[in-house]
Amino acid sequence: MLSVYLSGEIHTDWRDEIAQGADGMGIVFNAPVTDHGASDDCGVNILGAEDDKYWHDHKGAMVNAIRTRKGIEEADVVVVRFGDKYKQWNAAFDAGYAAALGKSLIILQPAEHDHALKEVNAAALAVARTPDQVVAILRYVVEGTLPG
Amino acid sequence: MLSVYLSGEIHTDWRDEIAQGADGMGIVFNAPVTDHGASDDCGVNILGAEDDKYWHDHKGAMVNAIRTRKGIEEADVVVVRFGDKYKQWNAAFDAGYAAALGKSLIILQPAEHDHALKEVNAAALAVARTPDQVVAILRYVVEGTLPG
Amino acid sequence: MLSVYLSGEIHTDWRDEIAQGADGMGIVFNAPVTDHGASDDCGVNILGAEDDKYWHDHKGAMVNAIRTRKGIEEADVVVVRFGDKYKQWNAAFDAGYAAALGKSLIILQPAEHDHALKEVNAAALAVARTPDQVVAILRYVVEGTLPG
Amino acid sequence: MLSVYLSGEIHTDWRDEIAQGADGMGIVFNAPVTDHGASDDCGVNILGAEDDKYWHDHKGAMVNAIRTRKGIEEADVVVVRFGDKYKQWNAAFDAGYAAALGKSLIILQPAEHDHALKEVNAAALAVARTPDQVVAILRYVVEGTLPG
Amino acid sequence: MLSVYLSGEIHTDWRDEIAQGADGMGIVFNAPVTDHGASDDCGVNILGAEDDKYWHDHKGAMVNAIRTRKGIEEADVVVVRFGDKYKQWNAAFDAGYAAALGKSLIILQPAEHDHALKEVNAAALAVARTPDQVVAILRYVVEGTLPG
Amino acid sequence: MLSVYLSGEIHTDWRDEIAQGADGMGIVFNAPVTDHGASDDCGVNILGAEDDKYWHDHKGAMVNAIRTRKGIEEADVVVVRFGDKYKQWNAAFDAGYAAALGKSLIILQPAEHDHALKEVNAAALAVARTPDQVVAILRYVVEGTLPG
Amino acid sequence: MLSVYLSGEIHTDWRDEIAQGADGMGIVFNAPVTDHGASDDCGVNILGAEDDKYWHDHKGAMVNAIRTRKGIEEADVVVVRFGDKYKQWNAAFDAGYAAALGKSLIILQPAEHDHALKEVNAAALAVARTPDQVVAILRYVVEGTLPG
Amino acid sequence: MLSVYLSGEIHTDWRDEIAQGADGMGIVFNAPVTDHGASDDCGVNILGAEDDKYWHDHKGAMVNAIRTRKGIEEADVVVVRFGDKYKQWNAAFDAGYAAALGKSLIILQPAEHDHALKEVNAAALAVARTPDQVVAILRYVVEGTLPG
Repeated sequence: MLSVYLSGEIHTDWRDEIAQGADGMGIVFNAPVTDHGASDDCGVNILGAEDDKYWHDHKGAMVNAIRTRKGIEEADVVVVRFGDKYKQWNAAFDAGYAAALGKSLIILQPAEHDHALKEVNAAALAVARTPDQVVAILRYVVEGTLPG
Repeated sequence: MLSVYLSGEIHTDWRDEIAQGADGMGIVFNAPVTDHGASDDCGVNILGAEDDKYWHDHKGAMVNAIRTRKGIEEADVVVVRFGDKYKQWNAAFDAGYAAALGKSLIILQPAEHDHALKEVNAAALAVARTPDQVVAILRYVVEGTLPG
Repeated sequence: MLSVYLSGEIHTDWRDEIAQGADGMGIVFNAPVTDHGASDDCGVNILGAEDDKYWHDHKGAMVNAIRTRKGIEEADVVVVRFGDKYKQWNAAFDAGYAAALGKSLIILQPAEHDHALKEVNAAALAVARTPDQVVAILRYVVEGTLPG
Repeated sequence: MLSVYLSGEIHTDWRDEIAQGADGMGIVFNAPVTDHGASDDCGVNILGAEDDKYWHDHKGAMVNAIRTRKGIEEADVVVVRFGDKYKQWNAAFDAGYAAALGKSLIILQPAEHDHALKEVNAAALAVARTPDQVVAILRYVVEGTLPG
Repeated sequence: MLSVYLSGEIHTDWRDEIAQGADGMGIVFNAPVTDHGASDDCGVNILGAEDDKYWHDHKGAMVNAIRTRKGIEEADVVVVRFGDKYKQWNAAFDAGYAAALGKSLIILQPAEHDHALKEVNAAALAVARTPDQVVAILRYVVEGTLPG
Repeated sequence: MLSVYLSGEIHTDWRDEIAQGADGMGIVFNAPVTDHGASDDCGVNILGAEDDKYWHDHKGAMVNAIRTRKGIEEADVVVVRFGDKYKQWNAAFDAGYAAALGKSLIILQPAEHDHALKEVNAAALAVARTPDQVVAILRYVVEGTLPG
Repeated sequence: MLSVYLSGEIHTDWRDEIAQGADGMGIVFNAPVTDHGASDDCGVNILGAEDDKYWHDHKGAMVNAIRTRKGIEEADVVVVRFGDKYKQWNAAFDAGYAAALGKSLIILQPAEHDHALKEVNAAALAVARTPDQVVAILRYVVEGTLPG
Repeated sequence: MLSVYLSGEIHTDWRDEIAQGADGMGIVFNAPVTDHGASDDCGVNILGAEDDKYWHDHKGAMVNAIRTRKGIEEADVVVVRFGDKYKQWNAAFDAGYAAALGKSLIILQPAEHDHALKEVNAAALAVARTPDQVVAILRYVVEGTLPG
């Protein structure tokens, strides 16, 4: 059984595309909480409000880390998606974290980011452009077969 | 003896400021190659040209990784600087790599990045705004004394 | 599946509160033996009496360590509860042990202990005041949803 | 060369007694910052004030952790001293942290704490009552000779 | 679920006593091959005869190591039994191997060996005299209850 | 349950012989993709063509590494088969990789390679000549019984 | 200080070329014993003759492993040279061993081996064709400067 | 620089023979305390008498473990000597401990113990009969030269 963690961009449905494409392969997928508001506010929502925005963010980031760490540490493969917008430093952080743990890393990114992501890509075993390519890799890893 | 790796932004002289401020503390500093051109071209310069820009970048990023990995793995403290410009995904990648290895992490960043860096900061033991603050932390860690 | 170890104070029913609150989430909970008398006497009860109280305690503490170590090492999340009374050094010891193993640590403590626990809290991903808050964190980690 | 970390109680001169007693043995001693005020305020002093006492403490505890972690991780032997007063949860936390890393642990404590420290003691290779006993152990470990 | 490896003496039925006593506790027991002849000859039986008794023994010991290593590495608890006869260096070797891996170690031995086994016992969490005591420890670890 | 990875030569049906011989023992077998063409072309087939044969090979080797690493890292026993032809450096690489991870290593090779494989064999727990011998070892490890 | 292990082919003077080229960089080089006869016979020379050539080789390979393992484990960078002749499985084994330990790997090989070495190369951070290129990489890693 | 730990039998001068034979090779040797009386009594001598002989032994064995663990953990090579007399379980324990840590193991033993030590020998890289053979191995490892 393959365990795959899907890190990074949370504004498109790429996780669903991969999960649907990989349906029936017996893969277990994990991911961060993709509800942006919940992810930002989980710390203060549960543990109490903070006056200072910095600590508001900090409490949330630490609660999210419980889920993220478990997801990465249990994964055989970590897919990190970089989108078109935002800083996405948490995605690059997850990639570094996964690389240091020796996880098999797949980067999913548009070609325009190639130069900026070259250090991240250098730690990866595959750089994909589309969710379908990620599905094809997972199928090959699990079933040993190639598309068409 | 404390070993400190200075990762991230390479367009200002923050590394020199820290090294000078920490002069006499017996700290060993390491860093990536900060000559931007050399860093981009080291792979093809040494190992031969590539027609494809992707592999040009890839060869360079892999050669740089030899130096980066050694620097981070030998460090007690990893300082990661985020500047005002560029994607800086390699900085965030280094932070994640260092965090997974259990290194003490200091993030040096302007306050405007606080929200975007909240996951990175949550893995750090200190978030500093100026090189002087980093120096003060290192002095406290090594000598046990505070400014003023 | 999330594995959670509930360490620390054994004189109130906080473990039951958490377990009941988390019912249906598929979490496996482990804990030390909470029968105070059994915990103190397990060594001599099984392996033979000791004249010296020190070795009486020692034999028991070592037998308990078999259970404690397994519980912490298998856990994804270690919750450590500090109560109002007693030295509770075993709770702080468990927190340090879990931190060194890289476990996600949640400290459950009354605010009056904040200063005395600051080093312990600094190693934690959350500091909660009530069992309900711990349940809410676990729910968020497992299900990605927030209260209310 | 033996590296020894001296953790715990900071209100008596036990560290000096051990260092003087071990003079000439070639042992390197490390310790936390023992200036209580500096230890409490280092975070806000260097990185800026906090309105909330909790975050004041938190920033300081994290900066101290840089020094503490390095000290424990580099040590062959970790001596943890429990005194007569205060909660001393940081001492017990250090003991647990050191135990999980497989360090040789020596607990230095008055007999009145034997029962409360039984789980901590069970992870130790020696439980001493006086700094002189710690010196004698270090001499035996380094030089192979016994007192008198 | 607890995994227990039963190492050492193979001429009495102590393994059966423990397994029967622990029936219903959900413990998985593993052990070396206890057929003395098969254990001695497995190497040459499968891989071909050796003229030299030393290599005859060596081939067998290496094949047995496949089973032994797996058993110890998967175990939470390693019980090592020393009997009245023979050198039993393989038992002490297994104890050292398990100790270095951080396994919870229970030594099962007659009191007459106490002095000769003091270094081995010092690495153990319990020293038992009878299989029943081992069963009682396992029951306490799994169920939290004491005999009678 | 024993997990066995079958590395190396892909031109004969030795994997099937072992799997059939071990039928009913409850062993889980994993292996690289043994379709030579798919294995060579998986990278470019999924991720896009390369003009340069070197990078064509590189992309494929990296995708295959996702499967290979998982197979070796999850294995208790790694069997590496050397055949009569080809360089087979990937087989020797896998053997070194498995050895460094502390896996139990079985080398399956014709006697003519004994001298050339002496460093590889020195890291193994068994050197077999036929798939039947590997089956016999696995049966002994799992069931404790010898042939005939 | 950089520690570099030079593994593989022992019939040309490539190690000297690299050591001379890197003179003055403060690099420590280690290597296997390159006296072919001594390397083959060290086991029986020291520990006594064997009738069987297999065990003759085995004893030697194990004695050589003491030196090899230390060299690889202490290295920051492992250079593995593949030449034109022989099976060179020990070189590929060392590459796999180094890769599993997370060492920075440089493969030095003629282009004709590219396809056969693709799995080995996929684990490397650089694939060089000449000792001069290896020297240039080491200079870049240590001094941050490029040729010419 | 090679670090060698000399474990086991303490009644002959084999450690001196090896140290003298290896004079000038730059090897650092460590060993347990070989004063039998001091080794037995160090615990009670330093930390106070025990009525019960078991705890007398236990306290001593634990203090000795501080030295033994450091010696083995820092060693590249662990030599374990088995003599003609006594149980020598501590020697076999050290061998197992060293093996689990991946140390290069050399067993020094008379041939009469071959069968009883076969499991221990199977974990070793060399089985020597005389201190001179150990010296020759160390010289080969350090200098690459063979006797005469």
